[in-house]
Amino acid sequence: MNPVEKLWSLFDQFKFEETADLFHDEFIMIWPQTRELIRGRKNFILLNLNYPGKWRCQIKKMVVEGDEISAEIHITDGNEVVICVGFYTLKDGKIWRGREFWPTPYDAPKGREEWVEF
Amino acid sequence: MNPVEKLWSLFDQFKFEETADLFHDEFIMIWPQTRELIRGRKNFILLNLNYPGKWRCQIKKMVVEGDEISAEIHITDGNEVVICVGFYTLKDGKIWRGREFWPTPYDAPKGREEWVEF
Repeated sequence: MNPVEKLWSLFDQFKFEETADLFHDEFIMIWPQTRELIRGRKNFILLNLNYPGKWRCQIKKMVVEGDEISAEIHITDGNEVVICVGFYTLKDGKIWRGREFWPTPYDAPKGREEWVEF
Repeated sequence: MNPVEKLWSLFDQFKFEETADLFHDEFIMIWPQTRELIRGRKNFILLNLNYPGKWRCQIKKMVVEGDEISAEIHITDGNEVVICVGFYTLKDGKIWRGREFWPTPYDAPKGREEWVEF
């Protein structure tokens, strides 16, 4: 397993603190939609540890090109399913940069029904 | 350029009909957020051709693993910047499957400020 697979596997088991070794000392995560930046493994682990709810995580798709990894992750608390789409860059075998999107459902715009199936 | 790069380059130049050769005969695009499925190059091209506005497109990040490609694309009409995150699968050198997310900005949840920079 690469470090991104290990990360989501440990999150899936609620083993947040055990992910520490997966992160580079200069790890930075960016969440562009909320314009949030999380600097360092400690902040990222504490944020996830304190996030409300117990969420199971499963990687549904992954693309790996050297130190560049992207993945689509499905995350559920048993009721809701949330999707995370992440781009990760490794350095020295550790997760050095992350950029994650959390796309949510929305209504399809009107007017394109003739080209679309639902 | 791979077919995904060509696609976005042609979209960037508003050359929608010239993208036809990039698609496999059995091309299917899925937009999970709206639960829309677009079947075939013709529907996909017509949908994009008829989308309101003139949008410039630039790939900001791409990960390629054989026939699997993921990309983050920034799309702007000069006012708004929209992000597309796409996963694409090639078959016989053509775009065979697409799965695109269109994440939008939202307010960061309260309570995690101590671990985050803005």
